[in-house]
Amino acid sequence: MPYTILDSNSILEYVQHYPDAKKFLDVTRPLESAELSDGNLNAVFRVYEQDNPGKSILLKQGLPYLRVAGESWPLGPERAGFEARALAHEYKFAPTLVPQPYWFDETMNINAMEDLRHYQVMRKPMMAGVRYENLGVMIGEFLASTLFGSSDFGMEAKEKKQLAKHFANGELCEITEDLILTEPFEHKLLAHKQNRNHFNLLIVRDLEKLQSDDDVKRNVAYLKYRFMTGAQALLHGDLHTGSIMASAPDENGQVDIRVIDPEFAFFGPMGFDVGLFMNAAAQHGHAEDYESRSSYRSYLYKQARDAWTTFEQGFREKLKNPNSISWTHQDFQDDFMLSLLRDTAGYAGCEMIRRTVGFAHVADLESIGDKRVRAQAEKMALKVGSTLIKKHSRVSSYDDLEKIVKGVIAV
Amino acid sequence: MPYTILDSNSILEYVQHYPDAKKFLDVTRPLESAELSDGNLNAVFRVYEQDNPGKSILLKQGLPYLRVAGESWPLGPERAGFEARALAHEYKFAPTLVPQPYWFDETMNINAMEDLRHYQVMRKPMMAGVRYENLGVMIGEFLASTLFGSSDFGMEAKEKKQLAKHFANGELCEITEDLILTEPFEHKLLAHKQNRNHFNLLIVRDLEKLQSDDDVKRNVAYLKYRFMTGAQALLHGDLHTGSIMASAPDENGQVDIRVIDPEFAFFGPMGFDVGLFMNAAAQHGHAEDYESRSSYRSYLYKQARDAWTTFEQGFREKLKNPNSISWTHQDFQDDFMLSLLRDTAGYAGCEMIRRTVGFAHVADLESIGDKRVRAQAEKMALKVGSTLIKKHSRVSSYDDLEKIVKGVIAV
Repeated sequence: MPYTILDSNSILEYVQHYPDAKKFLDVTRPLESAELSDGNLNAVFRVYEQDNPGKSILLKQGLPYLRVAGESWPLGPERAGFEARALAHEYKFAPTLVPQPYWFDETMNINAMEDLRHYQVMRKPMMAGVRYENLGVMIGEFLASTLFGSSDFGMEAKEKKQLAKHFANGELCEITEDLILTEPFEHKLLAHKQNRNHFNLLIVRDLEKLQSDDDVKRNVAYLKYRFMTGAQALLHGDLHTGSIMASAPDENGQVDIRVIDPEFAFFGPMGFDVGLFMNAAAQHGHAEDYESRSSYRSYLYKQARDAWTTFEQGFREKLKNPNSISWTHQDFQDDFMLSLLRDTAGYAGCEMIRRTVGFAHVADLESIGDKRVRAQAEKMALKVGSTLIKKHSRVSSYDDLEKIVKGVIAV
Repeated sequence: MPYTILDSNSILEYVQHYPDAKKFLDVTRPLESAELSDGNLNAVFRVYEQDNPGKSILLKQGLPYLRVAGESWPLGPERAGFEARALAHEYKFAPTLVPQPYWFDETMNINAMEDLRHYQVMRKPMMAGVRYENLGVMIGEFLASTLFGSSDFGMEAKEKKQLAKHFANGELCEITEDLILTEPFEHKLLAHKQNRNHFNLLIVRDLEKLQSDDDVKRNVAYLKYRFMTGAQALLHGDLHTGSIMASAPDENGQVDIRVIDPEFAFFGPMGFDVGLFMNAAAQHGHAEDYESRSSYRSYLYKQARDAWTTFEQGFREKLKNPNSISWTHQDFQDDFMLSLLRDTAGYAGCEMIRRTVGFAHVADLESIGDKRVRAQAEKMALKVGSTLIKKHSRVSSYDDLEKIVKGVIAV
């Protein structure tokens, strides 16, 4: 069958005939499907046995355009291949932290995987104040395992170069390069490019100030260049709370998590993944009344800190057995971990700003109905973000980073 | 015809039957060949018309082992493909500074190209004191054109990522990673690796000192990591005076040059190419009597400076029309050019040391017959090299770099 876009009917026929499907479902029994698509990019289906709905699989099909934008924004469906290869890597190094991959059908651009029925994408519960007490720790473990496992410390150089060949993810990297690392910081682009920013008109003056700050521009250009040339490890590439699913918290707020949707995967600077998660945590500090917000913010600060601390400890632990004597020197390891923290601070700042004034906002901020109330939160995001960007290369420790953030918020 | 290793007879038959050959030679007439192989890696042949020897082409065949070491050092012959693709890129951006490529035969791993009959590889003439007054300027132009042309400033990001896929040059990068950026600096490697250093026994103590210097190790690890992850541009990868051919100097010492042998090509940090040339120039400062050496050294300092200055000016000129507004900010450009100079200093230092104590030495130093005289030059090389390595990240200008080198030599 050549590539065709499937719907909730044709996906059943597809599953019934796909050779590997019988390993995961009894395809001789009646099957049903439900369309779950809610991300920006793909069609997503659950297929399950009619009289045993607990037996199910999840299928994601890459579409030849951006799902939310429609055919006016074409995008190669082959990005499903990037997701498949990235998920295979993540599953190898962090098998309990991602869905189990079942198969990848290159012709149909379909990834079939474990259906996380009892898991929920984190964004909305977190907007409602749900706490996942071990979120930061789990993400720290995910980052340490997947990033070390694809770095030059954990992988033979020749093997890494072969793997990297399969992650020339130009289209999705371009989205990041443009929407996160260019447009939010520029009032005007070069002639043939269009600026897709949109923002609350009540923060126009703050945005103008940001976009005329040479120190911001210098640092963002550096961070963008590093994103494009710093091939440190295979990144997830889109690690916000919309890409993390959690089981229902137990009485202590402990959960299992699964990181999903690695279709932005490519070899890039590790701090980008860490920074995106840091900002995702930060963003959930807005959408509540003041009393509970203050306490929820403490919870979020803790998750961000846990993520960094767990990541750093895990990475340093693995660095005790690197694949070359070159990486064994203590000074080098210390310098390296500090460079990751600095990148983390910088990319967190960029992400914070683009979620406020760029093309793709997130519900955490957008859900604040009162434009004036929202403007307060947005102004704060611009301020924290630009401070992180400007100071990122001089951050000396995680405490220092947190102090910078709290210092801006306290003003 | 499947891949077979050709000799000076079978190469004639090959040329007579290769479809494209008739564009460059009259293959109906009697042809003759000469084997010119003298590099480390490949078999090289000249094929010419018997009664018109001026009509000739050059053919390089990649062998399945390192030519100088023999079958005990296997190496994939497909590296001829890396050379072909790199030469095509260089020819596009610097057509007057490389041989014209004629064809690449993937099956036979043969690159056919312009035969530079009236050109001579520079190393030996430079050892004999020949001066090429515009060498530095030409190399600076070569570097500015080829490096900018494959950088994220000169090439669309998606296009660069597609190109980079074809330069996963793991085997040859490993040679650099091991022989230039690891072994010379380590007394002992991890268990399963072997150290291939060899050196003049009269400098053992200097070498021990170098190999126990933590500040050197920290900086070399950083430079090695940057070599492995800093995918800035398509490098030549092996830019010493054995990879540069020159026409006979005119009365003013002016020459045409052609840069050859880009089989180490890969996407890496630009300063590596610049640094290797800097060291190549420096190394020619040894092999003569004191009087003429002093004057020849002035000539070499000038070539090194010309190379940097021409490269920097050329690169900055091209940066006036970058492909994204992100790169237009003056502060970013200044930071970036300085980072290239710092990398240049660091890699020049590494190359200087490995040519002295590593696996592959060069004739410039080896040709000094008296071991004690040679030891003086070698000790100096270790001192200059380690100083450059340790100070590379604080170099502030080309003057500063030159002062560091001259300061060490004057002691």
